[in-house]
Order: sequence, then structure tokens, then C-alpha cells
Amino acid sequence: MSSSLFVSRRNRRTPFTDRVEAHGVTGYSIVNHTLLPKSFGRSVEEDYWHLREHVQIWDVSCQRQVEIRGKDAKKLVQWMTPRNLDRSETGQCLYSPLIDENAGMINDPVILKRDEDWYWLSIADSDVLLWAKGLALGMKMEVQIQEPDVSPLAVQGPKAEKLMTRVFGESISRLPFFRFGIFPFEGRNLVIARSGYSRQGGFEIYLDQTELGGKLWDTLWEAGKDLEVSPGCPNLIERVEGGLLSYGNEMTRGNNPLECNLDKFCDLNGSVQYIGRSRLIEIAQQGVDQRIRGIVFEGSPSPPCGFPWPLESNGQKVGYTTTVVWSPRLKTNLALAMVNKAYWETGDEVRVQLPDGSMREGYVTDLPFSV
Amino acid sequence: MSSSLFVSRRNRRTPFTDRVEAHGVTGYSIVNHTLLPKSFGRSVEEDYWHLREHVQIWDVSCQRQVEIRGKDAKKLVQWMTPRNLDRSETGQCLYSPLIDENAGMINDPVILKRDEDWYWLSIADSDVLLWAKGLALGMKMEVQIQEPDVSPLAVQGPKAEKLMTRVFGESISRLPFFRFGIFPFEGRNLVIARSGYSRQGGFEIYLDQTELGGKLWDTLWEAGKDLEVSPGCPNLIERVEGGLLSYGNEMTRGNNPLECNLDKFCDLNGSVQYIGRSRLIEIAQQGVDQRIRGIVFEGSPSPPCGFPWPLESNGQKVGYTTTVVWSPRLKTNLALAMVNKAYWETGDEVRVQLPDGSMREGYVTDLPFSV
Repeated sequence: MSSSLFVSRRNRRTPFTDRVEAHGVTGYSIVNHTLLPKSFGRSVEEDYWHLREHVQIWDVSCQRQVEIRGKDAKKLVQWMTPRNLDRSETGQCLYSPLIDENAGMINDPVILKRDEDWYWLSIADSDVLLWAKGLALGMKMEVQIQEPDVSPLAVQGPKAEKLMTRVFGESISRLPFFRFGIFPFEGRNLVIARSGYSRQGGFEIYLDQTELGGKLWDTLWEAGKDLEVSPGCPNLIERVEGGLLSYGNEMTRGNNPLECNLDKFCDLNGSVQYIGRSRLIEIAQQGVDQRIRGIVFEGSPSPPCGFPWPLESNGQKVGYTTTVVWSPRLKTNLALAMVNKAYWETGDEVRVQLPDGSMREGYVTDLPFSV
Repeated sequence: MSSSLFVSRRNRRTPFTDRVEAHGVTGYSIVNHTLLPKSFGRSVEEDYWHLREHVQIWDVSCQRQVEIRGKDAKKLVQWMTPRNLDRSETGQCLYSPLIDENAGMINDPVILKRDEDWYWLSIADSDVLLWAKGLALGMKMEVQIQEPDVSPLAVQGPKAEKLMTRVFGESISRLPFFRFGIFPFEGRNLVIARSGYSRQGGFEIYLDQTELGGKLWDTLWEAGKDLEVSPGCPNLIERVEGGLLSYGNEMTRGNNPLECNLDKFCDLNGSVQYIGRSRLIEIAQQGVDQRIRGIVFEGSPSPPCGFPWPLESNGQKVGYTTTVVWSPRLKTNLALAMVNKAYWETGDEVRVQLPDGSMREGYVTDLPFSV
């Protein structure tokens, strides 16, 4: 079995791995040195249809938390992101690009503001802990930085709210999007946010005691049986259709946040100070040369995209794909792609060059895909 | 196929992935966001016997290089490691623990000293780049830090020298252990070191141009046909027998280098300044409470160890395993383990508790295993 290749302490198990195994996981990916279940023996397409109709439980413990706490916590967190956090409130989930001195993307976490001097950075796949620790140590800041015993479990899909109210009570239905509240469970007070890596709606439960993983999973499972609850994972088709970005796929340290359409999370005219500010302002003034856009392209279902495939127009390279899926609903291939300025208008025609050398006719479109 | 689970740009391909696929790779692990081939359809045991007798080519591009260069490079690199680099020379490979302010292990790279102001840190599985960049930025050091287009390809096994001399000339046989030289290949000057993650001897070729990956692989392959050259990967059985440590397995940020038997790489009495020095000296003065030791234990071949298994003596927990293998040569189970002080003497009896609850009789031994 493929998952046997991941049996080592380095590929860290989660509070939910026992349950995931009991449900017949057939493969993992690795994110933040942690197991991310990727398949339960069904196709990505089957999972996609199920996610759009019912409710799924996802072990996304790999979204590790970087906890930054203490006197200088607010200062350090603001230093790390171009997003203006001045008016942020405790209880908010703040999607925030992190950039380096060249305005290159370091990560794109959701920052949970637990308190004025207490932050959780719920991270994508890079060791933000080391970045934050290095900065704090170099700048002699008074902060405590650690990875706490916190593992998110996502409940996603149109029936997620119904399931969650059964377990955590009616009040959870009043939680606004990208806000979190505190909900009791087995003697713990759990952070639960209305958030998640899908466009189907749902919640993320930040379990803070490994030993309770089985109990939390089982409780959700029992409560969801008549809702056709299923184990799942972030769904590639649904993610691409929804235009959700993935660090390491759509963006790397070689990209700035403006190329990634994260303009609204970049304070360019204010007085907020952060790493890479002068470079980012410079880039904004010059205007970016490329942006992430959607591509629709023809032909039979595409293989998955393991490296950037060239986009071509009139014999010139005009960009590259970053993620590719076949949409069974839209009955066409979809790509997220980095597209050069001269070709990024909606409707601009481009051709996608597949690894076998074949060329597919396509065109540029807005995100999320609305075709 | 399991490897289909890893098709995404985030799980980065290497200059050798095309060849690895052509040789029928059946699974990957992920290290430093990069594909590490783990299996070619043969068992770990078959690979083990082959490695001890012949020669293998390993795609270890995942050992990414963190290049630190510039006026303050020497200062920053020394700041990052307790190893005294004062008398180090250009051309040396320096196995060096990196620690944080609590003396916790950040990584254990081999540092290649390219010049007085130019270092490559050939890293294990954590984003040392972010750590180094954070420190440098916080301390306003004059350094350039990047991940260059450099991908190590290892040639390991008793016939490695024979194969390498055929491709790079007789002079490579005079390269001392843990030294590197510069050898021409297809118009490039490649860094080649006598090093590698096995005890069977061999070399690591630091390819510095992705496009040459296929050519380098093919050249080695052609030259090695009569030597029974084979594609391979770091072998778990051979690594454990040889007592080679793995970051993330034997040690984490929760361990200090003295617990990992890295005393000789820690300058405790000199004047060298580095992160975590005062804490490390304090730990050394108190003496460590646990150390990595070998455990030999009885019974049928053990399953692999995916999380720390308890070691027990007289009903007390006295440590935990970090990696476990069945040795087909020694016909017994071997574990690398973190063992409490009162039980770490050679011959001390301990019992290993397997995940199924069963207890196996065992005893403590020195590393590498010499039984």
C-alpha cells in the first residue's frame, strides 16, 4: 500500500490518523512534515460530487499553528505581513500573505487573532515557525513562538452546519464567515472557525489535545450518519473551480502577492511597516507583469500538472499553468495559471502545451471559474 | 499508482525525476518539498543486499542547498551552529548541528565550505532557508541567501569509486572522506564530495544545472552497467545498522545535540559564539538525561515505526524508539531509540512495546550496531 512509504516518525501522525486508517485511507501527501490523507479509495471526481452535496470530515492537522505570543507579538505579526492588522479584532480569521524582503511569498496563512498579544498562524506548506523565530531572535523581540498541540479538523460541505449544530449547539450557526468562537467539548474549550479550504461552506475545529482526536472524530461521525458524512480531503477539482490558491502550487517565494491577486491584503498607501514594504510599493508602482488567472482548455481530460506547463500564443511563451483539473461538471479542463500581462484579459486565447507535446486550445477567464 | 498522489507542482520534481520514472519508481516520500524516490518495486531488503555489494544511483535532490554568501556569511554560519568552524578549510564537508536559542535541533546539514565567504548547507527536512533569512534580516547582516539550482545525486556502494573514476577520472579516487573537489562535466564544473547517507562508501555529485540531469544520470548508468548499477534510495535497514541519524526521526526541535551524541560537534569550552550557547553549556554541565542508543530486540520481523514506541523496564517507561527495522543480516530487530540515563548502558535490558500492545525483550547497545 502506498501509505506504507510514509511510515516514519518524520512524517508525523495526527490525532485523527487512527480514524483515517480505520476508514481505509489509501494514500497520503505530506504537508508541514505531517500526514495529509489524500484518498479513501474513491476517485477525486466521486469525492467532488459528494462534497458538493453532503458533508465531509477532513484531517487537515497539517495546517500547523505557529503561535506567537507576548509583549511584541502584535509587532512581529504585523512585521511579517503586508496586510494592515490595525483594526483587526480578537475572534477574526485573517487570510494574510507573508512576504520576505524581496516581496516574495513565504506563506499565506490564516491568522487567528486570539488576543491582542496572542496569534495563531494557520499555515500552508513552509516552516513559518523558523522564519518567525529567526526574525524574533535577530530583532531581540519579546515573544514566545511555538507549535502548540493544535490540529485542525475540517467539516466541509452544504450539510456541515447541520452536523456542527448537532454536536456544538445552535449557537454555532450564528458564527460569521472567517470568525471563530470558543465551544466546549469534553472538558476542553475548542476554537472553532467558520472557514475551510473549499467553497462549499463549513467549519474548522482546532483540537488542542491530541488524546481527544478519536473522540472528536467519532462524535462527528455518529452525528452525521444520516447526513451521509464521509471522510475526505481538500478536493482538487473543487479547489480549482473555486479559484482557491495553494502555496507551492500557484505561488512560491519567486512570486509577489500582487501577482497572486492578493492586492486587497497589501497595505501600499498606509503607514503600516512590514518586511518587503519598499519593494512591494515599487512593484505596485511599476505594475506587475503577470497574474494568476483561470484558463479553460479543450480536449480529453488532462493529466494532472506536476510542473509548470507552458502557455503559448503565436509561438511565444506567455505564461504557465500551476494546477490543472478536468471539471466533470463543466465538462472541460480548467487550469490555474500565471499569465503575462499582454495576454491576461478575459477571453484572450492561449494554447496549453501538455507534457506529451500536444497543444490544446484555450482561453483566459476570471476566477473563480463561472463558466 | 501511489506516486500519482504526488503529482503537483508543490511536490517539486528534480533534474532526475524523468529518469527515475523511466526506471519504474513505485513510490516517493517528500523531503524539503521535493520528491524523494523511495521504491523501485523491489523490497527494502533486496535493495539492502544490492547496496552492500554493488553500486546505486540515488536521486537525493531533496537535500536542498541553502547558499549563504557575502561579507557576513562566515559570521552567520558560525552563529547558526555550535560546531567550531574556525579552522575549517575550503573544500571541507562539515557535518554540523544547527540549534535554536533553547539548544533545540533545527537541522543537521553537511556544510560545504566553498570559500571563506561562501557556504552551502546541504540540509535535512526543515526550511533552514527561512531560519537563515529570518536571522540575517533581523540582525541586518550583509549576506545573500538563496536556494541555488543545485541537486545532489548520490553514487553509493562498494563499487561507487570504480564507477566514478570511469566518468570523472582517476583523480576522484584521491578525494578524502568528507572533502569535495571540482570536476568537469559537459562544460560545467561540478562539486563532487566523498560522502553520502550510507556506510558503504560513495560520492555525492552536486549538479548545478537542471537541464543536465538526464545526461548525468545516463552517463553514470552506461558506465555502470557491468557493475550491476541500480537506481536506489537511502536504505532504511542499512541506515539503522550504521547508526546514521535522521532529522525528524531520531531528533526534533525538542532535542539538544548532546542527546543526539553530537558532543564532538559542540564547542562548549571555547570562545566561539553561537545561538543557544549558554543553554547548551548549561545542559552539558547538568548532564543530559537521555541519549540516542541502539536497541536489539527479539521476535518476528517488526513492523515499521511510525511514532515513538515506549521502552519499558520494570513497569516504567524508560525511553522510546525512533526508527525500527528488521535486519536480514543480523537476523534480529534493531531500533534507534532515545533512552533514559539510568538504562542506557550497553547490555541494559529493556522491553519494546509494539503498537499492537505486545512486549518484546531487548537490550541496549552501542552505535553503529556491531552485533
